[in-house]
Amino acid sequence: MHTPGSSTAGYTLLLIVQVVLIIVFGFCTDYAKELLPVKNETVKAAHEPEHEANNLRKYPHFQDIHVMIFAGFAFLMTFLKRYGFSASGLNLLVAALVVQWAIIMRGCYEMEDGIIPISLQNLIGADIAAAAVLISMGALLGRTTPIQLLIMGIVEIAIFAGNEYLQVELVKAADVGGSITVHAFGAYFGLAVSFMLRPKKEQAKAGPLEGSSYHSDISAMIGTIFLWIFWPSFNSALVDGADQERAIINTYLSLAGATVTTFVLSALVSHEHKLDMVHVQNSTLAGGVAVGSICNLLIHPFGALIVGVIAGVISVLGYRYLTPAILSNLRIADTCGVHNLHGMPAVLSAIFSAIYASFASHETYGNSLATIFPAMQSINATSHASEMGEHMEYVIGGYGRTGAKQAAFQLMAIGLTMLIAIVGGLLTGLILKSPSVRQLEEHELHKDDAFWETPSEDSTNTVATNETVHQ
Amino acid sequence: MHTPGSSTAGYTLLLIVQVVLIIVFGFCTDYAKELLPVKNETVKAAHEPEHEANNLRKYPHFQDIHVMIFAGFAFLMTFLKRYGFSASGLNLLVAALVVQWAIIMRGCYEMEDGIIPISLQNLIGADIAAAAVLISMGALLGRTTPIQLLIMGIVEIAIFAGNEYLQVELVKAADVGGSITVHAFGAYFGLAVSFMLRPKKEQAKAGPLEGSSYHSDISAMIGTIFLWIFWPSFNSALVDGADQERAIINTYLSLAGATVTTFVLSALVSHEHKLDMVHVQNSTLAGGVAVGSICNLLIHPFGALIVGVIAGVISVLGYRYLTPAILSNLRIADTCGVHNLHGMPAVLSAIFSAIYASFASHETYGNSLATIFPAMQSINATSHASEMGEHMEYVIGGYGRTGAKQAAFQLMAIGLTMLIAIVGGLLTGLILKSPSVRQLEEHELHKDDAFWETPSEDSTNTVATNETVHQ
Amino acid sequence: MHTPGSSTAGYTLLLIVQVVLIIVFGFCTDYAKELLPVKNETVKAAHEPEHEANNLRKYPHFQDIHVMIFAGFAFLMTFLKRYGFSASGLNLLVAALVVQWAIIMRGCYEMEDGIIPISLQNLIGADIAAAAVLISMGALLGRTTPIQLLIMGIVEIAIFAGNEYLQVELVKAADVGGSITVHAFGAYFGLAVSFMLRPKKEQAKAGPLEGSSYHSDISAMIGTIFLWIFWPSFNSALVDGADQERAIINTYLSLAGATVTTFVLSALVSHEHKLDMVHVQNSTLAGGVAVGSICNLLIHPFGALIVGVIAGVISVLGYRYLTPAILSNLRIADTCGVHNLHGMPAVLSAIFSAIYASFASHETYGNSLATIFPAMQSINATSHASEMGEHMEYVIGGYGRTGAKQAAFQLMAIGLTMLIAIVGGLLTGLILKSPSVRQLEEHELHKDDAFWETPSEDSTNTVATNETVHQ
Repeated sequence: MHTPGSSTAGYTLLLIVQVVLIIVFGFCTDYAKELLPVKNETVKAAHEPEHEANNLRKYPHFQDIHVMIFAGFAFLMTFLKRYGFSASGLNLLVAALVVQWAIIMRGCYEMEDGIIPISLQNLIGADIAAAAVLISMGALLGRTTPIQLLIMGIVEIAIFAGNEYLQVELVKAADVGGSITVHAFGAYFGLAVSFMLRPKKEQAKAGPLEGSSYHSDISAMIGTIFLWIFWPSFNSALVDGADQERAIINTYLSLAGATVTTFVLSALVSHEHKLDMVHVQNSTLAGGVAVGSICNLLIHPFGALIVGVIAGVISVLGYRYLTPAILSNLRIADTCGVHNLHGMPAVLSAIFSAIYASFASHETYGNSLATIFPAMQSINATSHASEMGEHMEYVIGGYGRTGAKQAAFQLMAIGLTMLIAIVGGLLTGLILKSPSVRQLEEHELHKDDAFWETPSEDSTNTVATNETVHQ
Repeated sequence: MHTPGSSTAGYTLLLIVQVVLIIVFGFCTDYAKELLPVKNETVKAAHEPEHEANNLRKYPHFQDIHVMIFAGFAFLMTFLKRYGFSASGLNLLVAALVVQWAIIMRGCYEMEDGIIPISLQNLIGADIAAAAVLISMGALLGRTTPIQLLIMGIVEIAIFAGNEYLQVELVKAADVGGSITVHAFGAYFGLAVSFMLRPKKEQAKAGPLEGSSYHSDISAMIGTIFLWIFWPSFNSALVDGADQERAIINTYLSLAGATVTTFVLSALVSHEHKLDMVHVQNSTLAGGVAVGSICNLLIHPFGALIVGVIAGVISVLGYRYLTPAILSNLRIADTCGVHNLHGMPAVLSAIFSAIYASFASHETYGNSLATIFPAMQSINATSHASEMGEHMEYVIGGYGRTGAKQAAFQLMAIGLTMLIAIVGGLLTGLILKSPSVRQLEEHELHKDDAFWETPSEDSTNTVATNETVHQ
Repeated sequence: MHTPGSSTAGYTLLLIVQVVLIIVFGFCTDYAKELLPVKNETVKAAHEPEHEANNLRKYPHFQDIHVMIFAGFAFLMTFLKRYGFSASGLNLLVAALVVQWAIIMRGCYEMEDGIIPISLQNLIGADIAAAAVLISMGALLGRTTPIQLLIMGIVEIAIFAGNEYLQVELVKAADVGGSITVHAFGAYFGLAVSFMLRPKKEQAKAGPLEGSSYHSDISAMIGTIFLWIFWPSFNSALVDGADQERAIINTYLSLAGATVTTFVLSALVSHEHKLDMVHVQNSTLAGGVAVGSICNLLIHPFGALIVGVIAGVISVLGYRYLTPAILSNLRIADTCGVHNLHGMPAVLSAIFSAIYASFASHETYGNSLATIFPAMQSINATSHASEMGEHMEYVIGGYGRTGAKQAAFQLMAIGLTMLIAIVGGLLTGLILKSPSVRQLEEHELHKDDAFWETPSEDSTNTVATNETVHQ
């Protein structure tokens, strides 16, 4: 039985959320100063070329990330045979809501005079934040109502923004590709929610619709491939110059290494040594996650390949052995296997970032050290930095860290992030299973029909109709 | 019965059109001067960096628009269950023909010494012009022969180019995102054609193939999502600097607002409160249209969200109530619902542009006023502009407009555009239903098989064959 | 009967190849010098802006090409009804392996102190090299094991890199779009391999699965359309400034001309004058190949259109008449018809390049002559070039070529390339059919099931299951 009444209430609540967001945008945001017209003509002439160079230079990167969030994640999740409307549609809905909310929540940490200044940079940040929510959604795919997803997204973004500020601004962890703050956070948050929503003991197995069809596996590849293609843009969007180019090269190589390894491992561990589309759709991307926190470091091309290969191995083995074990032992369902694509590779990335940080020094990194590991700046460098107009903020543990100390902070960042994500996810799960929130019934799992009008004709009828008309 | 003879004549005519286009290109076009090799070496050194900065800076924007025209529109139209070959194939054919023709027709208004100078800018303009034709095609989808579409495209582009010149250069309407000149024009032109091709009274209902299948709805989402992603590029391609960045931000927010609203309204008004893929595929995009004419104005983030929300509401209600009413009362079929995605949101955008124009002044917009509303430049500004090398042309109603006057011209632009589009569409429809042009018979509606070789195997046979071979 | 044992051996070999590649990367590559941190602070300030302008300016172009290689080729090859997992998956595997190998092989010709300096430029080159292998893969699609493809890719890249160096650096052929070095090379190499793997006489006909389904034809259009959209980026990636903009314009127009012509010809020559998806998926792209070697020349817009029209004609006629003839007479299978999309249009491009070269002179091309046809620089120009820091290398036939001489070298380039490709392909085919390499058995042709786990449910069962659950 459907309970459409509760759905209507949910959608009405969503409308209220949208109206509230408009009000908040009205009172708390405006365009960044450089986007407002300049009154003084002389200033303008000097001002504009630099603005273009600074802000819009990142626009192609932004659009690449935009494709990942709105096309990549959407189609990757269409792999379920009867959940394609939800995968492609709810991905759009969730992302469209949480990017608005992320602009506000992330903006809280960069307000000027009570106003969040909005520029392209905020849109990039919002898109990246949305990735965390979509990763969590992947863990829960097919097991929640649309409204549960949206509630999760709203809570998650608030916690995400706080954690991101904590790790990047206060702990000063190096994490340009967001492996710690986005991938680990999103994966463990989603798994914690999934734990709270865990099925009763007798139901902890794959449902009848929790699988792919031939066509859905191919449409999922649209997502995989566009994520694969644009991952170098995701990892390199927040850095510049030579650091950006290294981030591109390392991500490209890590993905290539992970891809080859995924195919090898998939064939070696699968039934009859046949390739498994689940591995190809997901583990090929693990190289992008695993290199995320270190892609701008001097890991050198062979280092990038090694990281990718290890990520591919871990990810395939995770899909093959760990996910089924977690489902049957802990009853934590993970529909898309985000633990294998995002969770473990992100932890790997954090560990590598600690290792590389421990070897980092001014000798190897030169002036880049202050950009890559801001808290490793010595006092001399600091005075120089402030001359150059750089803003020295409060940092946990202070400046002038040694490599070993920075390594410890890298590990602290991943540990704290996982802790915050898991606690946040457990609390969110509590909300989602409260009696006032509509839950899915068992026959509604992994099925569009519960929330979508679906075409009544199946493909066989189509052809029949077609031929009838023709004759 | 097929009448292949008439088809052959049509395709032969198409070949002749292509040959004529080549001749016209040969006599009337050449590369723009800055694309020809420089003979004097000293000039070159000074010349080149600036050229690159000016021309190719827009290339990523061009490619984003290119994706919208050739992938976005194509896949959006694949939603019909048995019209996917035509949707993806004829979109390519029509666009490939009309971009050539649009370069010529639009070029007529910027000839230098009888030659149209061709640069990247002309390709951007041609792609945008093609959008108008593809919108009209959406209204008629499945109800015309390929040749009828091409005839329509050729007539439409000629009228489009004239109207665009009229509104942008003579009326000096603000319309950076093309809501007036592209979306309203394309939608009402298509609807007028559809009126002329209206079915007999007893046939004015959805045909047996005028619906989607599960797979076709998902492939349509490819189109929706890529249009959604790159809409900020469409709206911001023709402006620069801070204006461009505002156009990006406003379009992004308007789309987000329209998307959330679309899901809410879809659930609230649909049968059993289930989400309707037609709304998700189309109304989520209405925010991009509705913000088109005002996206570079100081509408502020909350204004962009409000515009998006209103667009979402209007568009979903249009699909739910207006389109069926228009079909049954006026017998105007609108297969893709372009009135709801392009028509009404574009009128909304024009109205908003009038409202914002009426409040515009030099105090709020500073120097940007001359860029955004060129006809609002005062005489002082004019003399200054001419010092800066800007070209002051003849403008209907003259320069020095007040905000209120500019508002009136904005409304005049949308009114004139709709009038020209409707009259043009009616005349075009007359041509398309003339006895010398092959029409579709009723059993050919919304069906690829009339014009395409389609695979004889249905999917069931495929599997059977497959298994037979395997055993 | 499957022989999984040999598969495991193949995948283990692949793992060894990946490990060897990592070792080679470790000893023979590093980031290019400008990507290493600068130690001296003063140098950095002066250095960085220029670096960004030089290197990362090409990043949007790179990403467009990246989409072509990893999404375009992948989905174009999904047209077979039961080979979509292989098309999309093996495209990813092959490309991910050969880009690594291509960085090494191409890098051999630009080593500095025994180290290959890696920058974005190498990734672009590697992606372009991968295109050659994917073209060859298209000829063989469905007729090889994954391991055979990988062996072919490794051998092919080694020969490709040598031939590319020969034609571009020693013969100094003009070939910015890679029609000679990529398209002709890849096509004839693949056809030569296909000849070696030719079926026994009685099997030289299309197999039961060597066709498309309605859905697979539409997913192939994803590939076609993204290739079509980004082809201007492929052809213009290696040139700059006005040359780049001309390359974009010419490719755009050539593709448009080829597309219109493809539809016309397809209807005129096909059964019942219906359009054929094979032509639409492939011949529309022939315009991009045919203009490849000449896209930066002064061929003028009408010239670009003519090239496209001729390419469309040749390509459709090739699919309709030549491919079946080659299959039945020479038993050379060409699953994707790469001879019609890449082979013949590339030869056409080379012929056109000879014609245009024969008319080239300093009067028409000015200073661009030295960039476009480097070996046509006269001694005076040479001394000037060396003043400007340009590196004058050894060139077969020497500098100061006349137009006619350059034309001869253009023809020499295509002739040599075809010769090398065919001999290389024949030798590679010998390896692939050696007894130690697992071959496909006849019942495994064009079928994913031989190497992939495929979902057991067909779509009819899905719906049935679905309804059972629902009730």
